[in-house]
Amino acid sequence: MPKVAVILSGCGVKDGAEIHEAVSALLSITRRGAEYVCYAPDKTQHDVVDHLKQAPVAGEQRNVLVESARIARGEVRDLAEFDPAEVDALVIPGGFGSAKNLSDYALQGPTATPDPHVARAVRAMHAAGKPVGAICISPTVVAAVFQGTEVKPRLTIGSDPGTAGHLRDMGAEHVECAADDCIVDETNRIVSTPAYMSARNIAEVYTGIDRLVEEVLKLA
Amino acid sequence: MPKVAVILSGCGVKDGAEIHEAVSALLSITRRGAEYVCYAPDKTQHDVVDHLKQAPVAGEQRNVLVESARIARGEVRDLAEFDPAEVDALVIPGGFGSAKNLSDYALQGPTATPDPHVARAVRAMHAAGKPVGAICISPTVVAAVFQGTEVKPRLTIGSDPGTAGHLRDMGAEHVECAADDCIVDETNRIVSTPAYMSARNIAEVYTGIDRLVEEVLKLA
Repeated sequence: MPKVAVILSGCGVKDGAEIHEAVSALLSITRRGAEYVCYAPDKTQHDVVDHLKQAPVAGEQRNVLVESARIARGEVRDLAEFDPAEVDALVIPGGFGSAKNLSDYALQGPTATPDPHVARAVRAMHAAGKPVGAICISPTVVAAVFQGTEVKPRLTIGSDPGTAGHLRDMGAEHVECAADDCIVDETNRIVSTPAYMSARNIAEVYTGIDRLVEEVLKLA
Repeated sequence: MPKVAVILSGCGVKDGAEIHEAVSALLSITRRGAEYVCYAPDKTQHDVVDHLKQAPVAGEQRNVLVESARIARGEVRDLAEFDPAEVDALVIPGGFGSAKNLSDYALQGPTATPDPHVARAVRAMHAAGKPVGAICISPTVVAAVFQGTEVKPRLTIGSDPGTAGHLRDMGAEHVECAADDCIVDETNRIVSTPAYMSARNIAEVYTGIDRLVEEVLKLA
């Protein structure tokens, strides 16, 4: 049974992993006969956002690994312990947590720096020829990891011109893609899908992520 | 397009709504051509549990409505505003939040009292002949709502003898059911499925909840 590492970035679209996307990935991986193992960085979240008021909460701190454990039902490992030899593929759901906790793209745009443990995991998978799936805004993490190297990934974040331009600024190629489909970079074994960057509802999110998981497992 | 109210109880299996179950319900409702509208009570959670250590966090407080907004991507209404005329069906995902925030079943067992807004919503749907779906531990909420009345719902929580006995103590009938199926009480228009009370993985959870949503929509 192929084993897929899923990197979570908290729990909630505004300050963590987008919950519908993360659960869709776990569901699709399981339905397709693979198993998942969740990872998250053990560090303080960039911020805590009140998802009802859609506003940051001053003074509150939450930990990325601890909040990710909500989505993983307690079964989540510190990303510092990630060993590429243990897994066949890696998938990164979206949400602002991806752009605030897995890199600082939400703040720095195309000069973003990835979290060191995320960078190590993505580079190790690429070096081992194992596939990486990037959902929603997470292609910006992949682009940040390979910025300034000879690896020029072919990615999609859907059709948003600003984010697509940032990917090109970081040295990646951007390809437009519908929410219910995905883009496969065969050379680099990287698959991406727009999810809530383009999707109008959770059903489209699931369809696109299920396509991504299908292609990731083909490459595993 | 039928509209289904989904009552959330926070965000995370140990102190709120079980996230895989809640997302499975939202996904199934959408894939089956209906739409969802999320509700949650606006009150302090019974407790906050560190999902990594699986232990309560002393002194921390979170609000059920605010945390539920993480699952609902901000689109969640105060359950005090629930109007049964606006919806065609009601679904209640599980998680300890159901047994700690929607009722006090986790503390009181068969003498549990439901949250007053939850009780009002479930009674109003029943009185209007509109279906109610109860997932995982949430049949205990339904049983608590009708305890001491002439309504004797036919429910499942899977096969756990202790919880099944509590349902009977509360005046309900309990029927064993597999994780990938559901029990339909045609008389009372109540559908229930075991989800993580019995399921071995998220795929079984989705299959059972999708069956529940199918039956709930038939009754709507």
